[in-house]
Amino acid sequence: MYVDIGNALASVADPGVTRSELEGIDDQVAAAHSRIAEGRADNEFGYAALNLPALVDAGAIRRAVEPVADAGTVVTVGIGGSALGARTITTALTDDAGDSHVVLDNVDPDEVEGVLADLSFEDVAVNVVSKSGTTAETLANFLVVREAMDEAGVDWTERTVVTTGQSGPLADLAAEHDLPTLAVPTGVPGRFSALSAVGLVPAAILGCDVEAIMEGAWEAEATLGPSLFDCPGYAYGAVSYALEARGASVNAFMPYAERLEPFAEWFAQLWAESLGKDGGGQTPARALGATDQHSQLQLYRAGRRNTMVSFLTPRERPGVEVPEPDAEALAYLAGTDLGELLDAELQATEASLAEAGRPNVRIEIDRLDAHSLGELLYGMCAACIMAGELAGVDTFTQPAVEWGKETARDLLQGEETERTAAVEDKTELVVE
Amino acid sequence: MYVDIGNALASVADPGVTRSELEGIDDQVAAAHSRIAEGRADNEFGYAALNLPALVDAGAIRRAVEPVADAGTVVTVGIGGSALGARTITTALTDDAGDSHVVLDNVDPDEVEGVLADLSFEDVAVNVVSKSGTTAETLANFLVVREAMDEAGVDWTERTVVTTGQSGPLADLAAEHDLPTLAVPTGVPGRFSALSAVGLVPAAILGCDVEAIMEGAWEAEATLGPSLFDCPGYAYGAVSYALEARGASVNAFMPYAERLEPFAEWFAQLWAESLGKDGGGQTPARALGATDQHSQLQLYRAGRRNTMVSFLTPRERPGVEVPEPDAEALAYLAGTDLGELLDAELQATEASLAEAGRPNVRIEIDRLDAHSLGELLYGMCAACIMAGELAGVDTFTQPAVEWGKETARDLLQGEETERTAAVEDKTELVVE
Repeated sequence: MYVDIGNALASVADPGVTRSELEGIDDQVAAAHSRIAEGRADNEFGYAALNLPALVDAGAIRRAVEPVADAGTVVTVGIGGSALGARTITTALTDDAGDSHVVLDNVDPDEVEGVLADLSFEDVAVNVVSKSGTTAETLANFLVVREAMDEAGVDWTERTVVTTGQSGPLADLAAEHDLPTLAVPTGVPGRFSALSAVGLVPAAILGCDVEAIMEGAWEAEATLGPSLFDCPGYAYGAVSYALEARGASVNAFMPYAERLEPFAEWFAQLWAESLGKDGGGQTPARALGATDQHSQLQLYRAGRRNTMVSFLTPRERPGVEVPEPDAEALAYLAGTDLGELLDAELQATEASLAEAGRPNVRIEIDRLDAHSLGELLYGMCAACIMAGELAGVDTFTQPAVEWGKETARDLLQGEETERTAAVEDKTELVVE
Repeated sequence: MYVDIGNALASVADPGVTRSELEGIDDQVAAAHSRIAEGRADNEFGYAALNLPALVDAGAIRRAVEPVADAGTVVTVGIGGSALGARTITTALTDDAGDSHVVLDNVDPDEVEGVLADLSFEDVAVNVVSKSGTTAETLANFLVVREAMDEAGVDWTERTVVTTGQSGPLADLAAEHDLPTLAVPTGVPGRFSALSAVGLVPAAILGCDVEAIMEGAWEAEATLGPSLFDCPGYAYGAVSYALEARGASVNAFMPYAERLEPFAEWFAQLWAESLGKDGGGQTPARALGATDQHSQLQLYRAGRRNTMVSFLTPRERPGVEVPEPDAEALAYLAGTDLGELLDAELQATEASLAEAGRPNVRIEIDRLDAHSLGELLYGMCAACIMAGELAGVDTFTQPAVEWGKETARDLLQGEETERTAAVEDKTELVVE
């Protein structure tokens, strides 16, 4: 993993950070790194995420899922951190760009019906993931999936794997039916758990090289140290923090690889839930290169000066030559390759933002493979934890979602509470 | 289409707009509506988009694509406004949620290779869309697709439909090979062209009710008038404008329906390219309910006060009952329906934002069908044009993307220009 922060410097961009300001921030980074190291040593909640390379045995995960390793399709039933990491990994690493991994991470009846109608259940492994074992959306969907399997004459207990915490309804159910069960590692919040069973089970079932993912994570772990100038993850976290403090309240995350599109979603959760608190935190805006040059670039270059753009790109791509064009006007495409075209678009977009004084950062990985992906996932977790330390927020909690969660539960149970009264009393001004 | 702006009022939210401020803005709306009506009367560039219900003959589009109407899969080759509308419509309206519509809107060799490997070309209709007929990504991909069809022994001229402007390489090619050709209506920018051949061709091939889409658009057209209080589209545009002026620099667009996820992408282009200029414009952040409650909600409720959340939801959904749970802890799910659960989540999230004083707006459609979708697409185009008039920007251009486009072309041609020199001279500070 390589992080190029050149276009975040004040000599290029506004908002931007000067080299001497970066030196100053590097002292804070050293202090934050000590705090992180202490937290890791105690396996403290959240910091434990950076211990996953030591805590997780990829081979054991592979062995645990052997009973369902014949499956052609994995159906993950989970939401948020229980789904995004898993989808990110299979989309990046499977030959079919993740088509063999179906994720039920919503309770939309249209979607659930459509997905279930298309499945051959005898060929499916169901992967149910909930740390608490009580997540309403996940459990409701799981009940629906179980019933559909029953109706199709397939024994769901033969085709289901569970990943959950040590106790709770899902752990009980797994014990009762003797299902293969994997543990959500203690001390690791959902959004930081991609490099554990939570993220690795579907990849393991579909035959991805989960050991290589963890080797990549180890490699990233070895870069952690007291200076942002020696650690790509910390460099990204520290520069994002510095740009935010100078006005970049939006972080547009733009992979130049279709198979990394879910990575941008994973990043968006990591960034928003970890750093979006106490009236601060960057808004992650998901984008995709080159597609969104034709959609968002106008804004990033000419709108408010409130956006840093984060590019993410592999250094190597497979070759797909563009055939000889038969029209004069297309002659400039002769002899090119789709990957060359995509790389040229990235370089041009990066330069176009710099030319307009808009800050941007480029993250590179060697290629789209298991090792690089492990490095990237670990590196960005480290980046987020560093950004949280520098901002002084409680990186590992998400208190603001509780109010809504409890209210939804009250509404479903038909209870009348202060919160459901707030729903009833909504201020309406409807134009139709 | 219904737009509830109650939770954008200053009595609920900060930033928020008072009722008397809204009355003042309504005078500006009346003036802007006159300007829009004039532009429409002259079929002026951009404003012509609001004339599409009169200009477009859905039946003629259906008849034009008859030669390929036997196709099981449509492959659209296009990018930005030439792809997003088409994908939005087929995802919303087909039984397979758009799986039968494959969109090549990027030049990623990994993706293009993967897509082509999976296709049976004899069952495919290729839909090539480029207004200028020179878009690099589109033409490169089309050359690759043609070659793949040749190699598969399928005559691409029998399976290809072209949508383009009146002249250019693509128009020439269509004439040369006698391909079914549809016109990009004059005066309609790409991102405003969903309700024309640009957006309707794949839907027509796949048997969606394109006539009903246009009837919905007619219905929305009939609501245009001099007051925001009588026109849902204008109400949304005016309130977004007012909230932006008061600090809501981010518009988080959050449909509560999986099949409307591409709609959020379509909206993001519309908003970003049209309004992101002269140092202003809201940043569209794409989200999805209920999924992103577990990802972005923490930030929207407790981060910077810079975000308005736009909910979009159908009033009716299909019924999918949640089976009786067998564990005590899940008893509250007994007797519910997935749609009820999703609706409760929306109500709770909306109330949770209001409780924290965060502005939000709810857009509703009757149900996810062709008529409602036409209404919605037209209504949001009107919203965007109104927001642009109020902000005083040149809504229909996207000048900031030209620099990068030209630079990418120079790079590919190996030309040395001032722009390619800027790419060469990039300021680097790489951490690895």
